[in-house]
Parts: sequence; C-alpha cells; structure tokens
Amino acid sequence: MADIVEKDQKENAEKVSKNAAKKAEKAAKKAEIIAEKKTASGDASAEVETEDFAKDKYGLTALNQSKEKVDRDLTIVKDLTATLADQLVWIRGRLQTSRAKGKQCFFVLRQQQYTVQALVAVGDKVSKQMVKFAAGISKESIVDVYGVVRKVDQTIDSCSQQDVELHVEQIFVVSSAEARLPLLIEDASRSEKAEDATGPQISVNQDTRLDNRVLDLRTTTNQAIFRLEAGVCKLFRNALDAKGFVEIHTPKIIQAASEGGANVFTVSYFKSSAYLAQSPQFYKQMAIASDFNRVYTIGSVFRAEDSNTHRHLTEFIGLDLEMAFSYHYHEVTDTIGQLFVEIFKGLRDNYADEISTVNKQYPAQPFTFLEPALRLEYTQGVQMLREAGVEMEDDADLSTPNEKLLGKLVKAKYDTDFFILDKYPLAVRPFYTMPDPNNPRLSNSYDMFMRGEEILSGAQRIHDPALLTERSKHHGIDLSKIQSYIDAFKYGCYPHGGGGIGLERVVMLYLGLDNIRKTSMFPRDPKRLAP
Amino acid sequence: MADIVEKDQKENAEKVSKNAAKKAEKAAKKAEIIAEKKTASGDASAEVETEDFAKDKYGLTALNQSKEKVDRDLTIVKDLTATLADQLVWIRGRLQTSRAKGKQCFFVLRQQQYTVQALVAVGDKVSKQMVKFAAGISKESIVDVYGVVRKVDQTIDSCSQQDVELHVEQIFVVSSAEARLPLLIEDASRSEKAEDATGPQISVNQDTRLDNRVLDLRTTTNQAIFRLEAGVCKLFRNALDAKGFVEIHTPKIIQAASEGGANVFTVSYFKSSAYLAQSPQFYKQMAIASDFNRVYTIGSVFRAEDSNTHRHLTEFIGLDLEMAFSYHYHEVTDTIGQLFVEIFKGLRDNYADEISTVNKQYPAQPFTFLEPALRLEYTQGVQMLREAGVEMEDDADLSTPNEKLLGKLVKAKYDTDFFILDKYPLAVRPFYTMPDPNNPRLSNSYDMFMRGEEILSGAQRIHDPALLTERSKHHGIDLSKIQSYIDAFKYGCYPHGGGGIGLERVVMLYLGLDNIRKTSMFPRDPKRLAP
Repeated sequence: MADIVEKDQKENAEKVSKNAAKKAEKAAKKAEIIAEKKTASGDASAEVETEDFAKDKYGLTALNQSKEKVDRDLTIVKDLTATLADQLVWIRGRLQTSRAKGKQCFFVLRQQQYTVQALVAVGDKVSKQMVKFAAGISKESIVDVYGVVRKVDQTIDSCSQQDVELHVEQIFVVSSAEARLPLLIEDASRSEKAEDATGPQISVNQDTRLDNRVLDLRTTTNQAIFRLEAGVCKLFRNALDAKGFVEIHTPKIIQAASEGGANVFTVSYFKSSAYLAQSPQFYKQMAIASDFNRVYTIGSVFRAEDSNTHRHLTEFIGLDLEMAFSYHYHEVTDTIGQLFVEIFKGLRDNYADEISTVNKQYPAQPFTFLEPALRLEYTQGVQMLREAGVEMEDDADLSTPNEKLLGKLVKAKYDTDFFILDKYPLAVRPFYTMPDPNNPRLSNSYDMFMRGEEILSGAQRIHDPALLTERSKHHGIDLSKIQSYIDAFKYGCYPHGGGGIGLERVVMLYLGLDNIRKTSMFPRDPKRLAP
Repeated sequence: MADIVEKDQKENAEKVSKNAAKKAEKAAKKAEIIAEKKTASGDASAEVETEDFAKDKYGLTALNQSKEKVDRDLTIVKDLTATLADQLVWIRGRLQTSRAKGKQCFFVLRQQQYTVQALVAVGDKVSKQMVKFAAGISKESIVDVYGVVRKVDQTIDSCSQQDVELHVEQIFVVSSAEARLPLLIEDASRSEKAEDATGPQISVNQDTRLDNRVLDLRTTTNQAIFRLEAGVCKLFRNALDAKGFVEIHTPKIIQAASEGGANVFTVSYFKSSAYLAQSPQFYKQMAIASDFNRVYTIGSVFRAEDSNTHRHLTEFIGLDLEMAFSYHYHEVTDTIGQLFVEIFKGLRDNYADEISTVNKQYPAQPFTFLEPALRLEYTQGVQMLREAGVEMEDDADLSTPNEKLLGKLVKAKYDTDFFILDKYPLAVRPFYTMPDPNNPRLSNSYDMFMRGEEILSGAQRIHDPALLTERSKHHGIDLSKIQSYIDAFKYGCYPHGGGGIGLERVVMLYLGLDNIRKTSMFPRDPKRLAP
C-alpha cells in the first residue's frame, strides 16, 4: 500500500481539497482524544485502539501525479454480480451517499450509471476509527475501496447492482469533493413522474443544473442522454458510410453573411471581419460540385437569434448531408427517410437501457415510426389542419403551434411520430431551393418532423448558375456576397439535394424531453455562455 | 427519350450555361450549312444528312427540376470492365477531355477517381452532326452517354479503366461547364516527379487552385486525399469506440479567452462579446469531471495566429481525446500511441489505392511506424540533437527545425516516422500540465511526431483545484477568467490525461505532402477566407 498511500496529513492538506482534509483531520483528532481518554482511564483495550490496528487500511492518498506504476486491477461496478460472490476486489468510484449507524457505515459507490452498496463495519479488519473516517468522507469524493463481494438476501432496489454488496476492508480517498455541493445528485435525479404519496419533493431547476453542469451531468439520466446522443451520430455515420457517403469538414469562419445577413455572429478576423457559418449548406454543395457525389458533415452551426425558447440554441451540432441524384429529388428524400428509420431502429435496439433510464426520470411515450417513412405533401398537411379548424393560406408557412398540431393529427391517423412533409410553397423557402417545374407556387423541398417539431429542413438545390442568380435577385440578395457560391456551379454540377438535422433536437424529441438544454452538454443561448 | 430531353434550343439557352449552348448552336448551324450546300449540289446522300437521322440521340437536356421519375439504371465507371463487354450501358460523368479527328471524336469520361475512354464515330447510329455536337461539348460538362462496352486490344494507359472503351450511340449534356476554365484538370493533376524528357510543363499554383477549389478538388489526387482524410476520422472513432470512449460535442463560443488570451478570435455576442475556442481542452476535461470517463470529440478549433506557414491554419479540425486513468499517465500515452498505430495500419490496409493515387502526383516515401509506438524521453531527444551538433539548454523548447532534425535522427536510428516524446520541461507547457513528482523541472507531458512535425500535444492534467490555482497564478493567468474551469475539479475528479490531434497535419504528414492547404478542403489562413 505504501506505494500509493502517504499518510502524512500535512502534505495531503496541501495537495487535496482542504475541506476533506480538515474533516479527516478532525475525525482523526477525535479518535485520538477518545483513545487518550480511554488510556488515561487505564482501559487495556483502549491501548490497542489508540494504535488503531487498521491505520494503514484507510486515509487520504497523495495527489496522483503518476509517481509510480501500480500493478493492481480495478474491478468495475457493472461487473459486481453474484458470480463474483466472496471474492476480494478493488473498486474506484464516487461515494454517492453514506449513512453511519453505530459501529457501521453504509454507503453507495457509483461509476457512471452503475451503483453498488458498500458496508464498513467494526470488526476483525475494521477499526472504529476507520468507520468514522469512512462516515466523514464528503459525498462525490472518489474513493478506492477494497472489500469482499457478498450476495444479499434482499434485493437492493436503490442500486443498479441489486444482488450483491461490498464488505469493505480498506478505503482511501483518491480525490475529495468539497463538503457543500451546489446540488445533490439525488435531487437532480428525482423523477418527474406525478408526485408520490410522500408529497412534493426537492427538484433542481434548470439554471442551477447548468451553472453546475459538472455535477448535473453525473446523474444516471444525463449519463444515458449523452451516450444516446453519441449513438445518434454513430448511427448517422454508419448508415451513410454504407451508402457511399464521404465525410467532409467545412469552414465555420466565412467571408460573407451568406444567407441574407440576419442572425449571424460577427468575428474579428485580423484587420478585417468575418462571420460564423449558419450552416455548412454552401460548402457541402460545393463538395457536390467538386464531384464528391455524396457527403456528410457533423459540426457546430451558429445562429445569432435572440430566441429564448425550449428549442433554440445559439450554437448546436448539425448533421448535414448532401447528395447528387440521377433523375428526381425523391431519391434524396427517400435516402434521408431511410436514414432516420435506421437511426430510430438503432436507438431502439442498441440503446434500450439508456432510453429506459431517461424515462425513469422523464416519462415519455415510446417513439413510433413507420418503415418506409411516411411522406405527405404540404397541401395534404394544410388540408388536415383545415379539417381540424385551422384557418391558413395555401402559401403560408406553418407556425410552430400548427406544426405541433399537425404532428398530433398525423400521429392519430398514421401512428407515427416521424414524417416527411414534401413540396413546400416556394415563397417560404431559401433562394437556392429548386422551384417545382409542375407548379410555380411550389418547390422541391421538404421538412421532417419528430413529435410535431421540425428536425430537418432540406430541398433539391438549384445547380444552374443562371437560375440561381435569378432567384437570388428575386430574394433581394447581394450577389457580390455569394459570388464564389454561384461560381461553384459554372463548371457543371450534378442535380443534387440534401438536408440538415439538428442533433440536440433529435435527441430531445426522440426521448420526449421538454428542453433542448437537456441534450446539449454545455448549452449556449442568448443568456448563457458558461460554463 | 422525350421525357428527359427537350431539344428547344432557345429554352435550353436560357436554362443552361450560355457558352455551351452557343457552341452547340454554332455546331448545329455549321452542320446545317454544310447540309444545305450539299443539297444545293444535288447530292442525294446529303438529303438524308440534312434530316439528321440521329437527331434524337444527342443534345442538351432541360435543367433537371425533378419533373418526372425516370426508370433507367446508370452504370458507374468503376464497374466498366471486360465482364461487361458488348453490353449497352448508360453512364453519367464528366467529359474530361475530347479530341475530334475526321469522322470521329474520342473523349474521356470521368467519375471521381475513375475514367474511361469513349468514342463517337460516324456510322449506322451516329450522324456527322452528332460527332460535331460531341466534339463541341465543353470540358467538365456533365453528360449522359449511352453506348456499347468494347474490349480493347491495347491497354489504355491514360484511363483508370484500361481494358475497355465505350462506343457511344447517344450523348446528352446534363449540365454544361463554361468553355473557359480557370484551370485545367490535367494541369492540376500533373505529377511533381522530376520533369520528364519533354521539358518543363504547366503546373497550377496553390492560390489558383484554392481560388477555384471546386475545380481543383475534382482531380483524382484530391478525391483520394479527402477520402483518406475521412478514413482517418473513421479509424480514430472506431479505435476509441472499441475502447469504451464516448463521443461528445463541446462549445466553440466561449465566455473568456481561456488559455491566456493570445491568438484568440473575438465574436460579437448579442450586446456583449465572446471568443472562439482554441481547443476543446477545458470542456473535455469537464466531461471527465462529469464521469464520462473516456471521451473524444472531432470539431473545429480556431487560432488567431498570424502565421503564414506551410503548416498553420486559422481554423482546423481537432481530433481530441481525454481519459481517466488508474495509476499512471502512461496508460494514456500508451492508449494514444496504440490509437496512432491502428490509424496507420488502417490507412495502409484500407486506403492503399488512395495512397498510391496521391503518390503518383506527389511522390513520397511510404510512412513507417513501429508497434508498439516508440516512446523517447525529452532528455533523450535533446541528447540525440546535441550529438548531432545542436546547442540547446535542457529546459528549452524544441524549435521547429530541431523537431525536423530530431525526426530525421529518430528515423535513421529506429526506422519509424512516428514517435512519442515524453516528459517535456515543465516551463514550456501550459499551466494545467501536471508537474513530474520525481523531477520538479519536468512534467507529465508529451508531444507526438510524424515525419518530424508535431501532430499531437498532450499531458496528464492537474485534477486538483488547489494545485491548479497555484499553477495558474505562477503563469500569471487571471483566475476570474477560468473560475468555472477550476470549479469543475472541486467536487472530486479522476486523474486524467489526453491530447489533441490536428487532422489536416496528420493527413499531410502521412502522405508526405508539403502544405497543409492540400489537406483542408476549404482552408482558412490569415489571408484566405474564401471560397
């Protein structure tokens, strides 16, 4: 043990968090005082206790500076099952909660989503002082624990490892947490299900969570949300890789505010200024004009919108794709529809644990979808809304409430939480959208929805410089600002289309969460830039 | 054919690039004049030609606006081999070059890296007018070609498909390129091998390439470079996914210039200002403090350095990783070393075609590496340099020329283009670097090199808020600006380390290229913001 444990309290007090050190010192002093008293009274057994027969079996470790290599295997909490019964293991984890009761102390050790109950009880190998030390460790401190895995008679409902507990023989603090936490993991983890019979309980508000994101992210729910988010990216890439797409990277700093100039962040660029890209749109199209044929890119996109809503961020992750097609842009729509189906199936099949973990805290209906994905025309959507009493013009865009309502109507009629709405009015789409040749009011464009909220916008793009110039002028766009974009199509370009997906929205809506800040690890909105 | 071809020249002239249309018109007119002349002279065969028996077999197609779905399979150039001999196929590709000779016209059709020779020759199915039309199509235009695959007696060295050519029966322009190209693909593709006997040849300079990147990217070399770059990302992710890493996304807009304030871009953020992150460093460490245990992130990083060198960009893609370790930061170093070995092996085994394609234009020695990766200590590196005549202090940082020289010395001694240099002097590393407990002059940090250029910088990080505060003060950093970062370690944190890799540098150095602008699709430097 000597190799990784140094018991010089002074050195430790300098090196590890002060509070924990003080606490430990206090506990040690108290133990000494008791021992002294007992010695003074001439109690022989107290003599032994003064010496603390377990004194090498607990304490604070020196700050790990990689002083030496240690040959010791750490077992992971997830593996603690009955098959390891009666074996001795070393575990490193967070002390989540502890409860001292007479000569013993129960605590819960946590590793990401996994928890196990541990017990330090005075006995042959454990001294009173050691129990006190354990009881004094602040919540969220990281500890190395050595103990025997024991099968339990009664299932431990409060832990992920329900069939075993750990009977501790050694315990060392690896990294101390301050005693006062700005939020408690158990409060941040409390279910939002209808309050139970015990009445209202403490919950942690969003800003407190985000201000202390490092603690908040430790809840099993957040561990699950961000693992699932990583899963969405992986499924997106795997599905597209299999279809011959090439991953590309596009610049975020751009010379001109490309799409009209509104909602764009300005950057000082040496002696001049530049902008942050609102999407990789122009660049992925240029990659098509450069013969990459099918491309995708995952990266940050920036929107300087002063929107403080549940679904807007100023910076988010775009999953963008663009592809050449042979004859009709429905080749693109079908590809994207199938992409979503593959993502939904992948989540359902490979992330069932994460989904059920999140549902425990934030209950939601399971996400439903059809294969192939449902595609409706915009006019059909408008018709459904009108039948439900909504008054709107043919060429008007869908308002957010109408999108929500349409989502409900589609769900009721087709039993799907995902659908494609095709052939939007030309007037409500960006200048580079291909007009419908069969109906001048419409365009070859589409949005896709999850639970009634837009998660993808896309279209066939204009690949002809003359028509693109004409449409730019029609939209009042300063041609000089988009010249290099228009020029990209002067040397021949394949007909193409694509779309951009908001990652955080997909995860929020798939899980039925109510706020996009729950699916952005360190969210950015008009009022939040930290941490 | 009527479904996708409209032969009204006027309509076409409006819709497709003017030059090509004019050319086609001219060719058609010329053909008419010749035909008329012949008719006037009473030549019976000319009468037939006036009518142009093949007039439905060539022309300009209307702009594809997805008017109708077409049931026609397109064959890809890569699949054109002797096994398809004597079959009729439709191919869509770019007309790379053409050469008319009497009654026939040879041209090369290109799809990404693949090329095939095609021949239109006057005969039963092909009229004189059709050959003229074909000969008049501008380079880089996209065409639909229908023809018979024929085996050839002599290998066609100039094309990727060397055993067959296409005998064309129909040809339609899908998208016209302007007649005057700012650069020619064959010039941009010319090998930089020692000039051959024919003397000096036209090459395309870097700025012309980048100004016309959409054309430049079409060379087979660039098609290969960016496919290989996508491969590096895929191999990076696959290797780390297999080791239990979680992909995360970190904000690019940050509140405070985190690492001292130099070289950082300022962003207007509503009524205040913010900065662009120089690395995901702080956030990936916070993810470790949040118990994600092992994380990676691929994203844009920004450096406002006014460095106009072959290896600096103001915006590039960082492949970053961070991991908790149990006892010693060499667990991290080993993981990263092995990661590189897996990337190098993956490239060698799965991207041999791309590598050899690039080498044809830019010859380079094959990249060598050892498994496990070679790790040297900084002092060993300094020693090797001194033995080679370099004078330097023990605690001095390596200059770029000395790094280059060290790379050569290591290559000569160990036959590897990749190595890890460990235990840098503390003085030359960032404030958050863990000091070496065994030698106060050194630190638990490392750089990794490819062909003598740094491609990763990393270290064990300080995970203790007290020591981190002390080191920040030592470096003269304004604590108030990094408070949320320091706070992240107040609630317990696992010992951890990691590193950040520059994607474009890895690709540049792996392929032995001389400029990082060759491996950034749309590079950004102090002087370039477009396209």
